[in-house]
Amino acid sequence: MFEMESRGELVEKIEDLVNRKRYTELRDLLLPLEPADIAILADDLDDEKTLPLLFRLLPKEQAAEVFVELESDQQELLIRGFSNTELKEVLDELYLDDTVDIVEEMPANVVKRILKHSDPDMRKSINEILKYPEDSTGSIMTTEFVDLKETMTVEDALKRIRRTGPDKETINVCYVIDDWRHLIGVLSIRTLLLAEEDDIIGDIMERNYICVQTLDDQEETARALGKYDFLALPVVDTENRLVGIVTVDDAIDVLQEETTEDMEKMAAMLPTDKPYLRTSAFDTFKSRIPWLLLLMVSATFTGQIISSFEDALSAFTILTAYIPMLMDTGGNCGSQASVTVIRGLSLGEIEFSDLIQVVWKECRVALLCGTVLAGANFAKLMLLDRMVFHNPITVTVAAVICLTLVCTVFAAKIVGCMLPLLAKKIGFDPAVMASPFITTIVDALSLLIYFRFASFLLGI
Amino acid sequence: MFEMESRGELVEKIEDLVNRKRYTELRDLLLPLEPADIAILADDLDDEKTLPLLFRLLPKEQAAEVFVELESDQQELLIRGFSNTELKEVLDELYLDDTVDIVEEMPANVVKRILKHSDPDMRKSINEILKYPEDSTGSIMTTEFVDLKETMTVEDALKRIRRTGPDKETINVCYVIDDWRHLIGVLSIRTLLLAEEDDIIGDIMERNYICVQTLDDQEETARALGKYDFLALPVVDTENRLVGIVTVDDAIDVLQEETTEDMEKMAAMLPTDKPYLRTSAFDTFKSRIPWLLLLMVSATFTGQIISSFEDALSAFTILTAYIPMLMDTGGNCGSQASVTVIRGLSLGEIEFSDLIQVVWKECRVALLCGTVLAGANFAKLMLLDRMVFHNPITVTVAAVICLTLVCTVFAAKIVGCMLPLLAKKIGFDPAVMASPFITTIVDALSLLIYFRFASFLLGI
Repeated sequence: MFEMESRGELVEKIEDLVNRKRYTELRDLLLPLEPADIAILADDLDDEKTLPLLFRLLPKEQAAEVFVELESDQQELLIRGFSNTELKEVLDELYLDDTVDIVEEMPANVVKRILKHSDPDMRKSINEILKYPEDSTGSIMTTEFVDLKETMTVEDALKRIRRTGPDKETINVCYVIDDWRHLIGVLSIRTLLLAEEDDIIGDIMERNYICVQTLDDQEETARALGKYDFLALPVVDTENRLVGIVTVDDAIDVLQEETTEDMEKMAAMLPTDKPYLRTSAFDTFKSRIPWLLLLMVSATFTGQIISSFEDALSAFTILTAYIPMLMDTGGNCGSQASVTVIRGLSLGEIEFSDLIQVVWKECRVALLCGTVLAGANFAKLMLLDRMVFHNPITVTVAAVICLTLVCTVFAAKIVGCMLPLLAKKIGFDPAVMASPFITTIVDALSLLIYFRFASFLLGI
Repeated sequence: MFEMESRGELVEKIEDLVNRKRYTELRDLLLPLEPADIAILADDLDDEKTLPLLFRLLPKEQAAEVFVELESDQQELLIRGFSNTELKEVLDELYLDDTVDIVEEMPANVVKRILKHSDPDMRKSINEILKYPEDSTGSIMTTEFVDLKETMTVEDALKRIRRTGPDKETINVCYVIDDWRHLIGVLSIRTLLLAEEDDIIGDIMERNYICVQTLDDQEETARALGKYDFLALPVVDTENRLVGIVTVDDAIDVLQEETTEDMEKMAAMLPTDKPYLRTSAFDTFKSRIPWLLLLMVSATFTGQIISSFEDALSAFTILTAYIPMLMDTGGNCGSQASVTVIRGLSLGEIEFSDLIQVVWKECRVALLCGTVLAGANFAKLMLLDRMVFHNPITVTVAAVICLTLVCTVFAAKIVGCMLPLLAKKIGFDPAVMASPFITTIVDALSLLIYFRFASFLLGI
């Protein structure tokens, strides 16, 4: 893992060696680096021709590992430059799930070329996995796992692993199937190694295993891997036949992507799967404008509320000055509640049946927050705004503002915690019900409360 | 993995079997369940006495696994009920890093009891790990790894793994050290199994390994595990002596906790480590009130800006109606930019040196968003607000609003993308610079721009 400071230097060094055609030195420089790091360096290279050159310098296996880590536009660039033999060599080194990931990102003509040069078994498997819907467990699984039979001895099993292991994504967990490929047990390589050579697999395997189905949501599968501390989970079809496995490294990627998506949705953006710096300004614009437009138009309500209380505002112009404070505090309170609930839902800590418990808790929190905020605000109004800034604030005006504050905090917390739960219940994505959406609702509520108190207490 | 629907039923069944003292049936019901699931069920039990009973029904190993998964208040409850022998038995089954996690959460008198009943080696290791600062890699590592010597044959190594393996957290990756415990290579169990029995470890081990230091940030270590797709990372001290390993399951927990913390900070909350439903209303209040107070007080600026333009507002009262829309749109634009940058920073996709590139990109996005929003708003003002709602909107007033919108979007995007980057540069947490903070700044900016345009174009 190199430091970020040294990254620029490394890139310069690579470019310098390329210019001076010092290829042996260049190869020695790259050999000890991790594939993920070479991919990061490749991203910083100025000249398009350098990457294919680096790629050809590396040993086949390392080259393939780097290839998997590259961004898809660079993978495409490389594939377009490959001879058919080179393409075939790279494909032979890749694991199935990585190949599928690549195929999913490539334009049609590149996909055609990839499929043409994969061996027939691989092609069939790729096509199988491509059929699973996006975001399903099937779409992230690999079919390259170790399968054993119940009747094998530990010695047989180890022999089988030694023979077939090199092509498997992982040998850390093995799966025991019957003649109809039904999954009947799982077995870690640890259990296998710590057992006696003549133990029977059926006796030492774990029959109480957790498995997922091909159509299960990939995020749930990833969370299950994290929850149970597994290195891989078996994936079965509707008839409990073992069709693949999902490994923990893919689960981490899924969790990271889904979290990024959640954050994007919570900040009123449509999710994108490309890293920020690789997305064009226009694509970023496209992902941001829909919600901005919708939320802007829905602010019409707040505008109309203010317009309809114009007379009150012109009688007590000072009231206008506190609108931003009330709206912002409401928005902040609402987003605190909504973000907490959304995160709890996605971690599985909260579910819809907890609704009453959540609302009751938010009520108590709102009461505490509202009281403290109103108290602090009253002190500030009377001491700072009235004495120091000489704003025309009477005790009644201060009361209107502080009472509004308490009610707004209350409304914001309740709306903030309930909307995500209701969204989840009706099958919506709770993350969309986050801050910006709730702010818009709370804005309107806080203004209504404000003017209600004003007309009641100030007699306007 | 049981469905959420069946969870309630299972709890009822357990409570029923307990009441009817059908312990054999109860044991048969629990045996096939995963420890993480039993812990979830335990959380739902009404009677405090049921958990110790379940615990004693389970086989020792499974009981210890359940124990690790329990919430800390339940662990404390159990420990307080344990006899000294029981405590010792449970502790013997636990891995070191789990014991440390538990010790960190317990009150002093329970910690004392735990240390008293751990064996001396364990006690020494616990005390070592407790010395590392919170959030450091040292605090999440375990010292139970497999170490090999360079001169061993594969056969020797496998023998050593078979002998010492049962007490190790993982055998999937083994570490090769010299006589002074310096790390010189790593070796996966796969390489070991696929090698010949008389191969020498020094010849087949990987000498280009990635390692982390005890004082490295735990989040960076967890990200590195994800980035390189490793199952474990070796942890060395300042003299490159191997002191522990961090495994991928702990990395997933760290990533999840850090993400939750980021989200909490971004929604203006102080992070808490307890799940939402287990935190008292008062604790939730304490984590939410500081930022609410600070942000409320800083809204004084926006109030003062409005007060100082009171005359303009009473001349053109219609201007007030559009303040919420301008402020909300600004806030939304700002949080879109800030959330994108904060997430990019935490995933390592963006760094401070990308500042110019980020700002330039946000400028272009702002121009696009600003233009579209202003255009849509102009149409809405003239067609809906003027024609339908009969608001007194002239073309000049509409121009003031739309020009303000463009400038606000611009300011919001620039402030939104720059603040997190600057925060990171000066060693602050970028997540704190998110929506609520930026909204407060953008509010003030948008009002200043608004009134500037109003006095210029409307001559007030």
